[in-house]
Amino acid sequence: MIADGPTKTYCHRRLNFLTSKFYLHEMLNEMAELKELKSVPHRDFYNVRKVDTHIHAAACMSQKHLLTFIQETYKTDSDRVVLEKDGQKLTLKQVFHCLNKDPYDLTVDSLDVHAGRHTFHRFDKFNSKYNPVGASELREIFLKTDNYMNGEYFASIIKEVAHDLEESKYQHAEPRVSIYGRSPEEWDSLSKWFINHKVYSPNMRWIIQVPRIYDIFKEKKLVPNFSKMLENIFLPLFEATVNPQKHKHLNVFLQYVSGFDSVDDESKHSDHMFSFRSPKPEDWTTDDNPPYSYYIFHMYANIMVLNNLRKERGLSTFQFRPHCGEAGSITHLVLLLTSDNISHGLNLKKSPVLQYLYYLAQVPIAMSPLSNNSLFLEYSKNPLREFLHKGLCVSLSTDDPMQFHYTKEPLMEEYAIAAQLWKLSTCDVCEIARNSVLQSGLSHQDKCHFLGVNYLKDGPEGNDIRRSNVAQIRMAYRHDTLCNELSFIADAVKSDAMNSQYD
Amino acid sequence: MIADGPTKTYCHRRLNFLTSKFYLHEMLNEMAELKELKSVPHRDFYNVRKVDTHIHAAACMSQKHLLTFIQETYKTDSDRVVLEKDGQKLTLKQVFHCLNKDPYDLTVDSLDVHAGRHTFHRFDKFNSKYNPVGASELREIFLKTDNYMNGEYFASIIKEVAHDLEESKYQHAEPRVSIYGRSPEEWDSLSKWFINHKVYSPNMRWIIQVPRIYDIFKEKKLVPNFSKMLENIFLPLFEATVNPQKHKHLNVFLQYVSGFDSVDDESKHSDHMFSFRSPKPEDWTTDDNPPYSYYIFHMYANIMVLNNLRKERGLSTFQFRPHCGEAGSITHLVLLLTSDNISHGLNLKKSPVLQYLYYLAQVPIAMSPLSNNSLFLEYSKNPLREFLHKGLCVSLSTDDPMQFHYTKEPLMEEYAIAAQLWKLSTCDVCEIARNSVLQSGLSHQDKCHFLGVNYLKDGPEGNDIRRSNVAQIRMAYRHDTLCNELSFIADAVKSDAMNSQYD
Repeated sequence: MIADGPTKTYCHRRLNFLTSKFYLHEMLNEMAELKELKSVPHRDFYNVRKVDTHIHAAACMSQKHLLTFIQETYKTDSDRVVLEKDGQKLTLKQVFHCLNKDPYDLTVDSLDVHAGRHTFHRFDKFNSKYNPVGASELREIFLKTDNYMNGEYFASIIKEVAHDLEESKYQHAEPRVSIYGRSPEEWDSLSKWFINHKVYSPNMRWIIQVPRIYDIFKEKKLVPNFSKMLENIFLPLFEATVNPQKHKHLNVFLQYVSGFDSVDDESKHSDHMFSFRSPKPEDWTTDDNPPYSYYIFHMYANIMVLNNLRKERGLSTFQFRPHCGEAGSITHLVLLLTSDNISHGLNLKKSPVLQYLYYLAQVPIAMSPLSNNSLFLEYSKNPLREFLHKGLCVSLSTDDPMQFHYTKEPLMEEYAIAAQLWKLSTCDVCEIARNSVLQSGLSHQDKCHFLGVNYLKDGPEGNDIRRSNVAQIRMAYRHDTLCNELSFIADAVKSDAMNSQYD
Repeated sequence: MIADGPTKTYCHRRLNFLTSKFYLHEMLNEMAELKELKSVPHRDFYNVRKVDTHIHAAACMSQKHLLTFIQETYKTDSDRVVLEKDGQKLTLKQVFHCLNKDPYDLTVDSLDVHAGRHTFHRFDKFNSKYNPVGASELREIFLKTDNYMNGEYFASIIKEVAHDLEESKYQHAEPRVSIYGRSPEEWDSLSKWFINHKVYSPNMRWIIQVPRIYDIFKEKKLVPNFSKMLENIFLPLFEATVNPQKHKHLNVFLQYVSGFDSVDDESKHSDHMFSFRSPKPEDWTTDDNPPYSYYIFHMYANIMVLNNLRKERGLSTFQFRPHCGEAGSITHLVLLLTSDNISHGLNLKKSPVLQYLYYLAQVPIAMSPLSNNSLFLEYSKNPLREFLHKGLCVSLSTDDPMQFHYTKEPLMEEYAIAAQLWKLSTCDVCEIARNSVLQSGLSHQDKCHFLGVNYLKDGPEGNDIRRSNVAQIRMAYRHDTLCNELSFIADAVKSDAMNSQYD
């Protein structure tokens, strides 16, 4: 369907229409929207809720923050054993001695975790930026949950980030932590880390990211086939759902987990074309990595079954919010069929049909233009403004403050740059912020509190301007426009049915 | 000269050459520069000194900061008399009552001091943004030095900004305050404000801005001719220089004043063409405003004479750092003849001869791309990166955080956006920061401390990489390139002289 000529023309024209219609709306109603906002007491862009809908836990602190944390830790903890390597136990002092570095002299330059010109279209270089000073030892010590110290340092630094969010009061984040599917013990270890170090924060929800690295585990003989990887990821969750008493830690942790992500470089090519003839997971025994769509389908299938089971038992369910459309084939974006929302969505630029479908279905998109600017697409070419104007449900997120941002307030930096460069109005940025809360994994209670009790209703009725600072004029415009597009299609289907009746 | 065809071609080609040469330098030396920076202990972009070289005191706080300050002040001071209007004394409560506003309900939206789409090419609208809630009363109460409370609130909020700078440790600012030339008492009032409220901060130096609004004073019959305005501005300074004991307050204040600025909308047209036939200031008695060049020349002449007098007596001297080349005729930029450095310089884009002269003479330019983006030139078209690459001495400054910035760290926001959008390297941003210290009015001792004791020397010798974090490779490149251009011209002049000798 996405390659069909007439469909492409139709969608392209509808999208152009949506753009022009918004400009007209803007010209006619901009001042009226602003007037509405000015009359809202005590609410402005600074105190509307904003959720960082896409942020990786291992890079959720700024480079300066990580540097200071390492230096402070060294001051008090240099004689502590922090790493076991080749059977040898090493203290923090010994680790730095091996690296031939004095923590006091470390700088953000020598830490070298910031992306730049050199990472553009080089996901491999970008990935290695996760290693402070280029040393995987420091990543292991400071940015992992399951190391020699059971991830104590990583928990501490995340709690500092959480503290900053709580101080800001109006900012929330959904950090993504990894489950690899290497062994079935990962869940236990992760939930113990969460509970023992009390990583809970009212301003944070958690997302589980699964890297698409079956080929690495297979090569190391950690798993015999793809099915085993899926089992390592999902079986513990089924067990915890069926027998919560036996898996107390995991059950507590799962209350704060809002969904799953699938991560890796989308531009990697795969020779296999996923179809109903593809091998079943237990038969995927080659050393090759399965393609993107194969991963996504099997994660989706497992999450669906798991959610149904959990719903039956009155337990929380999980969203599926994969990275999608950051690079690679546009067919990745077909997974709007399987996803609750996606991260990036840049490639929607290239497919009018998919873009229009994302609009019609209002599939939320967590966009990170500063991340894209360092990796895949220059800021000025980012489609975020265009998507927002057309009415796609976009939010702003940081992806990796450690690699991309400069100030102490990465999410505000992201909003500031978008607002400055694209000359967004206050109503625009507040609409993005509202979208971020809507598409986040925050609880129903939180959403009622942050957006108003009717937030699930469509159009202006669902908007409490005193909380969202989004003009009702804007809400009405969005609602009318969407209803119009939908009824257009409904009418076409109806008349088509009528015609065939008389055929 | 700036209109001469062959000269234009020559300069244009030299500038293109400089651009290409820098790209070559970058390609060949980028990694080597980075390696140099990585090996510098304890110094990175975050702890090199940065001076905000162009910032207006009345807008040096963020919009959110001003809002909070007004609300906090109202909580404790609502019954205080703060304004005298039409002979009536009004308390803060009464003022807000007249405006029909409750300070608790105020938001940044209703405060309405932020620039946006509506201020582009509308300097008039921009100017009115200085009035919180559109009310000149609030500007009078909170953002003036000589009001009913002798500027107590304005002093308090500036001290809060200074406190943030001191906390940051590595950030400095040179706020600009106004002397209008309306009456000779302005200096006394300003210096009393400075001393009585203890506005001094080690992280701040002061610049005096003179608005070009003779026509308004003339119309109100406050001054009979232009000479009287100049006298009001400069005579008190001559008197304080000749007789310091009689003007103690002013003399103390002048120790912290580093220079003068001339401000207003440069795009305003004037019918008068300044030349040696122009009327003398005492004969400028029409109601028309003199043109830009007339103002600049007469300010320059007065500052020169004043500086010579002060130098003789061992007193501090003043720089002349006017707004120039933000808009209007390119001929404004000819004032590199009269200025120590300029603010904006955007129009150098349009004149290769002037741009090349600014390069050769290394006239410092304080640029504010975010301000330009809201007023005169889109960010993507800003020439800052191009100027930097060619080797012009540019710094980054905020102009008006209240109107343009979003985060709590406006200067860092300015650097962050430039670094992100233009993919500047660490060496690039540190070079800009070093330029900002060099071109600032900080004392010689401060500059020795921040840049190294040899900072006045040319080339790598003058650079202490442990303080500036600018690679010596970069310094050598800049120095060689400039010497090369200069010797080119020297050679041409020499051979020209030789030729005429044999003519």
